[in-house]
Amino acid sequence: MQSVHIVSAYDEELKFLAKRIAAMGGHAERMVEQAVAALVNADPELAQKVIRDDMVLDEGQREIDDKAIVIIARRQPMATDLREIVGAIRISADLERVGDLGKNVAKRVMAVTDGREATSLYRGLEALANLALTQLKEVLDVYASRAVDKIGFVRDRDEQIDAMYTSLFRELLTYMMEDPRNITSCTHLLFCAKNIERIGDHATNIAETIYYIVTGEQMPAERPKEDKTDRVVMQAELAPK
Amino acid sequence: MQSVHIVSAYDEELKFLAKRIAAMGGHAERMVEQAVAALVNADPELAQKVIRDDMVLDEGQREIDDKAIVIIARRQPMATDLREIVGAIRISADLERVGDLGKNVAKRVMAVTDGREATSLYRGLEALANLALTQLKEVLDVYASRAVDKIGFVRDRDEQIDAMYTSLFRELLTYMMEDPRNITSCTHLLFCAKNIERIGDHATNIAETIYYIVTGEQMPAERPKEDKTDRVVMQAELAPK
Repeated sequence: MQSVHIVSAYDEELKFLAKRIAAMGGHAERMVEQAVAALVNADPELAQKVIRDDMVLDEGQREIDDKAIVIIARRQPMATDLREIVGAIRISADLERVGDLGKNVAKRVMAVTDGREATSLYRGLEALANLALTQLKEVLDVYASRAVDKIGFVRDRDEQIDAMYTSLFRELLTYMMEDPRNITSCTHLLFCAKNIERIGDHATNIAETIYYIVTGEQMPAERPKEDKTDRVVMQAELAPK
Repeated sequence: MQSVHIVSAYDEELKFLAKRIAAMGGHAERMVEQAVAALVNADPELAQKVIRDDMVLDEGQREIDDKAIVIIARRQPMATDLREIVGAIRISADLERVGDLGKNVAKRVMAVTDGREATSLYRGLEALANLALTQLKEVLDVYASRAVDKIGFVRDRDEQIDAMYTSLFRELLTYMMEDPRNITSCTHLLFCAKNIERIGDHATNIAETIYYIVTGEQMPAERPKEDKTDRVVMQAELAPK
């Protein structure tokens, strides 16, 4: 049931939360795009910019939390409005984590010293990032439109992201086994790939929160938000016994 | 300022949240202990148990979220009580993540097929887990006692956890470089170590939430919650050029 409210200042407060979420979402997307670009192009300046930019999301989350609590205390919202406000608290937490993950990728740029000749790895990382960012963008569009009926795409793309991450994981292990000089860089790239895969998970969390805001129910059926690489075992056949 | 409330059913509702948080905390600690034990002893049955146990924390978080929203809607709490309830939502989210991280470690048990002769690695992982679990236990004690003046230990132990994780990270890279046959197992152990280090971060998040509940303010000074390994570069000198 919709809760009707007459106070238009109240509407403004709810709109404020939604606007800040949208702004945080755009900022998080940019951070991730730039972090991956910094990694691919070995651009430490851009990496430093991303690391600095993370502050904005920390502040955004704090602002939304504080504002949400003030609104709850002052307006004593019920039903939909309350879900709206609690949902904003959850979504801003997910977006803050997406920013952290982008920052984590940026912080590894300096440590990835070799292996840039392995362009397929970097193309793979870019493709994975694009998929995760598309997931995030489309989920934030659903937050704006509230068209939760469209939310089916989330699971399918989750599976694409997992499949792409798993093949990247295998490719990175292969590079390590081929030449120990690749191990340090490939290890950092493994963590970068994992961070990007996690961004997709947070996008999925946000989709679930939106579903909860609109319907008041948990999104049906456990999603396949699963890291399949935790079972990957590869033998280094070429290794001298 | 403390908000005084006469309704004792209300007190019961707040106590319920605190009790469920304590129960979730104990469950999360057990999961992490058992996940690390399963890894060290190559015990797939125990690993499967940990993976199943994660459900309990997912349900716990959902229960606390739903209950918290009902309390806010019915009681319209102010000040301290509202922070108490919002804090419970945040802490249960951190504990749910700790359970996920324990589950992630458990899921890698089957993939760690070699290298168990490298006992120093496993002792290192156990020591890291003990440190992270001590952090979590003591933080949950502060949640019970509300003695936020004692919360100074959090930063010091954060630094110990980071230092131990960094040396473990270096040791794992060394094993990989020494023999490509160690690469798969050591990669999974790297992710396990990272998961355990993250548990310490969530304990720190919880400490910050407790500080916020009790004082109404953000915990002063940016914590050193930092993964130093993202700058680690190691050369494989022994590798043939």
